[in-house]
Formats: sequence, C-alpha cells, structure tokens
Amino acid sequence: MMMQFEEDVALLTDLYELTMAQGYLHEGHNEPATFSLFIRKYPPNRGFFVSCGLEDVLRYLESFRFTPKALDQLHRTGIFSDDFLDYLKELRFSGEVRAIPEGRLFFVDEPVLEVTAPIIEAQLVETFIINQVNLQTLIASKAARCVHAARGRSVVDFSLRRTQGTDAGMKVARASYIAGFSATSNVLAGVTYDIPLSGTMAHSFVSSYEREIDAFRAFARNFPERSILLIETYDAITGAHKAVEVAREMAARNQRLQGVRIDSGDLLTLGQEVRLILDEAGFSNVKIIGSGGLDEFDLDELSQENAPYDAYGVGTKMGVSRDAPWTDMAYKLVRYGERPIMKLSSNKVSLPDAKQVFRFNEVGHLHHDVIALRNEHMDGTQPLLKEVMANGHITAPLPSLGEIREQFRNEFSHLNEKYKELRNPDIYQVNLSPSLQALKESLEQELEAIEVEAGPAQRLTRDLGES
Amino acid sequence: MMMQFEEDVALLTDLYELTMAQGYLHEGHNEPATFSLFIRKYPPNRGFFVSCGLEDVLRYLESFRFTPKALDQLHRTGIFSDDFLDYLKELRFSGEVRAIPEGRLFFVDEPVLEVTAPIIEAQLVETFIINQVNLQTLIASKAARCVHAARGRSVVDFSLRRTQGTDAGMKVARASYIAGFSATSNVLAGVTYDIPLSGTMAHSFVSSYEREIDAFRAFARNFPERSILLIETYDAITGAHKAVEVAREMAARNQRLQGVRIDSGDLLTLGQEVRLILDEAGFSNVKIIGSGGLDEFDLDELSQENAPYDAYGVGTKMGVSRDAPWTDMAYKLVRYGERPIMKLSSNKVSLPDAKQVFRFNEVGHLHHDVIALRNEHMDGTQPLLKEVMANGHITAPLPSLGEIREQFRNEFSHLNEKYKELRNPDIYQVNLSPSLQALKESLEQELEAIEVEAGPAQRLTRDLGES
Repeated sequence: MMMQFEEDVALLTDLYELTMAQGYLHEGHNEPATFSLFIRKYPPNRGFFVSCGLEDVLRYLESFRFTPKALDQLHRTGIFSDDFLDYLKELRFSGEVRAIPEGRLFFVDEPVLEVTAPIIEAQLVETFIINQVNLQTLIASKAARCVHAARGRSVVDFSLRRTQGTDAGMKVARASYIAGFSATSNVLAGVTYDIPLSGTMAHSFVSSYEREIDAFRAFARNFPERSILLIETYDAITGAHKAVEVAREMAARNQRLQGVRIDSGDLLTLGQEVRLILDEAGFSNVKIIGSGGLDEFDLDELSQENAPYDAYGVGTKMGVSRDAPWTDMAYKLVRYGERPIMKLSSNKVSLPDAKQVFRFNEVGHLHHDVIALRNEHMDGTQPLLKEVMANGHITAPLPSLGEIREQFRNEFSHLNEKYKELRNPDIYQVNLSPSLQALKESLEQELEAIEVEAGPAQRLTRDLGES
Repeated sequence: MMMQFEEDVALLTDLYELTMAQGYLHEGHNEPATFSLFIRKYPPNRGFFVSCGLEDVLRYLESFRFTPKALDQLHRTGIFSDDFLDYLKELRFSGEVRAIPEGRLFFVDEPVLEVTAPIIEAQLVETFIINQVNLQTLIASKAARCVHAARGRSVVDFSLRRTQGTDAGMKVARASYIAGFSATSNVLAGVTYDIPLSGTMAHSFVSSYEREIDAFRAFARNFPERSILLIETYDAITGAHKAVEVAREMAARNQRLQGVRIDSGDLLTLGQEVRLILDEAGFSNVKIIGSGGLDEFDLDELSQENAPYDAYGVGTKMGVSRDAPWTDMAYKLVRYGERPIMKLSSNKVSLPDAKQVFRFNEVGHLHHDVIALRNEHMDGTQPLLKEVMANGHITAPLPSLGEIREQFRNEFSHLNEKYKELRNPDIYQVNLSPSLQALKESLEQELEAIEVEAGPAQRLTRDLGES
C-alpha cells in the first residue's frame, strides 16, 4: 500500500509506454532500438553531474516482469487487448545497457546510459529509468557541491524527514554518501547500504525535561561515548555553559562529551562564541556541529569565515536539491533497426545514433570530452560508457558503494575549480566527433525535407496564424 | 531492495529518534506526550495549504512494528542496549491522532495533525510523519494552484518520470487528483488509487517510423477510440496537417480522432494555428492538449490569452513543486505529561500545548481561523481537528479519494481569490485564542527566566564573543 511497489514495479510507468507497446506489437514493429539517456541543459549554477542510479536501474531491468495481479489490473482498465496482455505475461527485458559508471562525472548532452533492446522493451522501461537516474544524479551533484563547499569538514545527511517521499529518503542517503558525505541519519539507509550512521538529539528531548541540563545529563548517562548535545532549544550560549557543566561531570567519570550542536540563529557568531566557551573551560576536544537549513552556499560562507565547526548536518535543501529540484533529463530514441534517429522539436533537438563518450585529460586535469558514434575509437583515452548488461543480465559484479565513492572522490579532485564554482561555473567543453556532427547535419536536412517542408496551403495558414 | 521497504519501515527514521527512545526508556521518562505537526511559514507565493498524507500516516501507525530482521540490523550497529531492543520487539503504536482531514485547507502555524502517545512512540514516528505529510501537502497545494490557473480546462499529471523517486511518483498522482487534476499518466497510481488514466504518445513512437504520418496511422489503427497524436516531433504545423489527413481517414471509417498534443515551442501561437487548421478542416471536435514544462504560471498566461487548449499535461514542475520543493514543516513537542511545552530557538518559536483550530466563515467565504487550546469551544463554528486514531487504531472509515477531492473542491471554492493569487497572495488571518496567547506569553517568560537568564560569567563571555 505505502511503499510496497516492488512486485508491481512494471506498472510504475506512463500509460503511453503501454499503449505504444501495444501499437508496436500489433504493427509488428519491434526491431532493436537504442535509447540515450542524457541531460539537455545545466540547471542554474550547475557545471557538472555525478552519475548515480545505475544499480537500481540494472536490478529493475533484471527482474522486470508483469505479475498476474498487474496483468489483471491492466485488463480491468479496458484499454488493452487480450493478445497484448498475453504477450506481456512472458515479457522479460532481454536487452543491452551501456552506461557511464556511478560516481563518474558527466556533462550536458552526454549519454549517461544507453539501452538497446526490441523497441517494446526499451520503451516500457523509460519512465522508471528516468525517474531513478534523474533523482540520484541530481542529488549526488548537489551533495558534491556541499562537500566541496565544506572544505574538508564532515558533512552528514539529515534530510530524510523532508525528502520527497520515502524512496527519495533512501536514494538521497546513498547518493550523498557517494558524493562524499560521511554519514546519514537515515537508519534504514545506513543498514541497507552500509553507510555510517550519525545522530544527535532533538529539541523535543530537551524540552521534555523540566530543565535543559537534566536532559543533557540523561543523554550523557545513556550514551557516554556518543553524546552530542543540542544546545539551542532556549539559547545557545547558556546551553553551551550547561554543556560545559555536563562535560565536567562526564570527565569526572572518565567520559568525554563528543560534541554540541547548534541548529538555528547566526551560526557563525554562535559557533565562535560556543567555541570560546568550550575552549576556555578546557574542552577544546568537544566538537561543534552546525545544522539548520544549510546548503552549499551557507557552507561556503562559513568556510570563508573559517567558522569553528567540525561537521555540518545538511538536510532539506540538499535532499530536495532546493535551487534545482529536477534536471532536464530525457530518454530519446536515437536508433531504430539500422536507422539513426533524431527529433527536431523546438529547443529539444537530440543527437542521433548510438554513442560513446571520450574524456581527454591534460596535466592531470579533465580537459574536454568528445561525444562520438558508438563504434569510434580515439587514441590516448578510454571510452566512458561500459557495457553493464547484455541479454538482460548484469555482465560484471557491481562496484561497492565504497568503490563508487572513491571513484568519485578521485575524478572530482581532477576537475578544475572553475567548473565547481557554486555560482555561474565555467562550462566544461564537450565536442561532437566529426562523424557525429556530419550525421546530425545530414539527418537534420533530410528530416526538414521529408517532414517539415510543406505545400503552399500549409504555409499560408501558418502566415495567417503568425500575423 | 529497491522500493521494498514496507516491512522495514520502522527503520525509516532518524538515528536520534532511536537513541532518544533508549534514553527515555532507561530514564523511565515515558509519559504521554503531544506533538504538533505544522508549517512555520509560507513558501514563496503560497497562501494556503491542502491537507494531504493522513491516510499513509494512519496505515503506518497501525502497522508500526520492528521486525526480527530490523532488530537484528539495529543490534549489529552496536549502538543500542539489549533491553532496549527487547522493548522494541513488543512495541506498537498505542496512541491517539487528531488531524485536519485530507483535502481541507489549512494555514501557517495551524496543527494539521497532533499525535498523543507515550513519548517513546510519539518520538519514533516523527520522521515518517513529516516525510509523508510534507510531500503530499506540498504537492496538493502546488497542484491546486495549477488547477486554479487552468480555469476549468482539464489538467493531467504527467510527472512520474521526474518526481523525486518512486514513492513521490505515487503520492504526486494521488495528491494532484485530490487537488482537482482529472487524470494521471502513472499506471500503478491509476490502478492503486482508482484515478483515471490518461496518455498520448511519445516522440519515440513517431520517430521510430520512417514517416511521421505512418506513426499516426499506426496509432489510430490500434486505438481508434483514444488516439491523441503528438504532432511536433518535427514541426507542429506540418504535424497538424498530417493529423488532419489521419482524422479524415478515421472519419471515413466512422472513427474520431480524439486529439493532438503539442509539447514544445510557443504554445499560445502554435495552439492558435493548430486550432485554425483543425477547424478549417472540419475537425473542431478534435481536442488540443498542451504540455512541456508547464506550471501554474504558464497555465495562467495561456488562460489569460484564452489559448485554445482543451487540456494540459503538467509534469515535472508540479511533481517536484519546482519553485518551492519543501515546506518548513515541523513536528514539535507541545505537551509532556501535564506540562505544556514550547521552544525559544531563534525564528523557531513554537506554540505550546495540545490545540484545536476553528474556522470562521462570513457570507459564504472563509474569513479567519483561530488556533486555540484543545479543550476550548467556540460558538458558531466546528473544530477542524478530528480524532482519527485512538489506542493505535483508526476510529472511523477513511474517506474515499473521491470524497476527499470533493471536500477540497467545495472548500476551495469558498476561499477568496486574494488568497489564491499566484504571486504574493494575501495572508489569511489566523489568530491565537486569548487562552493560547496567555499561555504562550507566560511560558516564554518562565523559560527565559529558568533557561536563558545567565550569571555574570556567562554574560561576560557573551559580550566578548560579540565584540
């Protein structure tokens, strides 16, 4: 009911995927098709994307099927023919997937994933693939900006309560960990993905006690090795003094207060004052954690001022990618049978045919990429898209989350600062190979001639409409 | 793995909920607590909220339990004591919920839901409750703006591919239907919630055929009663002429082309031109559907120009609430045992004690609301918060989606236009009852005196810090 979709996940698709599939079936129109998944333009202030979501896509494709219940539900819509539903009963995903591995950087127009399969299969899986890769890439990219802005301080995912739903809560924890977050507060994500867990205490814990200091003492008694006291339920400064008192009591028991957290107010000033209070009391080893509506822009300001925080809890604004809560990610047919394909719709022109992406480095830094046709080779560099699924099966063991995270850390360290600027970053150079460019131009001309050039009657109407 | 959380949903919580719970248990600190769920401020351009998400909350609470697997996973974190894990094994939610029913309007500071239960239970469910009500209320409120801006034209949810994950895809379909959308493209949501399904065709269908018109003909052959042709894969005007040709062929077979869809370009001009082409050819009964990155601001512009669209497909920008992808929704402890509670943190002052909300109408319109203490009564109006769960069980049959939708439609029609303005709406008047106001002031003074007033040493440090 609530989150139990797994067995019905084949229905988690747009109606038109199914009606088109029935059309394809009845017309005997089911040749191998290649679809490219790519992002058409940068959201505001973005200069790179972090590939994320592939593992979920592959697991989905490997287990793709319509259950008897799903087929019955489709039948009862009255939209589909019996022979089509019989066909769906046996349908499995039998195709191929090539993708830029999770954790790697990619840029506008570059296919992060290509599916090649009979068009019915490749079409039916569109919605889910975009849904997952769009979200996870979006969040990994946002989280990478936060980590970058924190300049070495730990950043922890606190977003679960305000992510857009439960699935997002899980995927945000995973994506932000890939991008360099050090932990999550999301318990299910922690145990599912093996991500370190982190947590402090809530205002409700403090206020449920008659005195703030009683709450601090109760928590310290219970978690002598992992107490982080939230000190601003009433006032951060007086809270800090109470924390010092508790830290002294703990020290007398040979325990150490791990830290204090400030969740509202002017974090820079409060952090400085609280640091001073702790240091003067001899508790320079007690950490300060900052939180409360933070995003990469806040972290950057705090970093510039060298605010004395040891770690940040980053929640909502990262977890929903507040300033850019979606990407213009599309899954476009680029080849059908032996025919390369593109569309001409306004501002949505797509690049034809199955592709490959090549990355060129210079003095240890990413220099530029080239989008090429799939069978092209380029000296001195490796292709980014790897085969990850063939005949409907995953072709090699999937990397661990730690490996993906390390892959990201390493490549990101070789991306020049100018592409990581939080505001108006430089646009990384992505060229088309001469062969791809030539194919695009010739197809454009051909399609203009066949599909758009209209007779005099049409032109007349158009002119009237525009006048 | 992917979306199969249901049995583990008790773990879908922040770590601190569990550590605080262990603290409460060990300290024997588990009196009945009341938490209020409310939104602290309006997101940009918002003037109302639509209550949504209660059903998922109630189902979650009724089935709340830690499975053996979940307990084992908690054990392996090394954070929790054995007696606490034993306690969790038997834990069920045994409390009470009072809520503003789904589909009703509410405003800033008003509790949309209150949980009263032993504090361990009430605390553990915080994260999930905020997660669901925040998302669903956010989307219902955004969708209501879209429906309002469409001024009577149908609006269909096309958002699944770019919602933030799969759970959001489901909840957006449900929430937007409550707010007046007429259908969804999301098949699983359609069959799960009994929402009408709608769909057209994709560019890939068109471009997989050598000629656009062949694609149109193939689709019309297969769905003679529900063909909506996407006409701008190459060029909307020439596409419209081809649609006319297919409509004529269908008419000769006694079939009717249902509509055409335009998904990019200048929708106003293209819609007018396409309408003219269809009308001149005698197909004034063929509908035009507009889509492509639309939100309420676009719909409003098109409505103002009386653009000849019969329906709109609204996707991403509604489905992620693009301009405001979160609300500042909080779940705050307001009463513990017999003691009313509030916090003072900067900009986050909460209203103490269990509450009720009263709505006053004038000449058939919503006039103002009053937030009162729970046991207050006000003449001439009904309380908005209803008991929906007692002793951990739902107390009355839940309303159907259709009933919720009708409830919303009716109440929204009695909300003055000035609160529905898309930009800078008027702020609806919400007063505090004299009793609540008095309690708030006395508690503020008391807390200031007990928790904040500091001795000379503290003040000195503070002055140093600020200089």
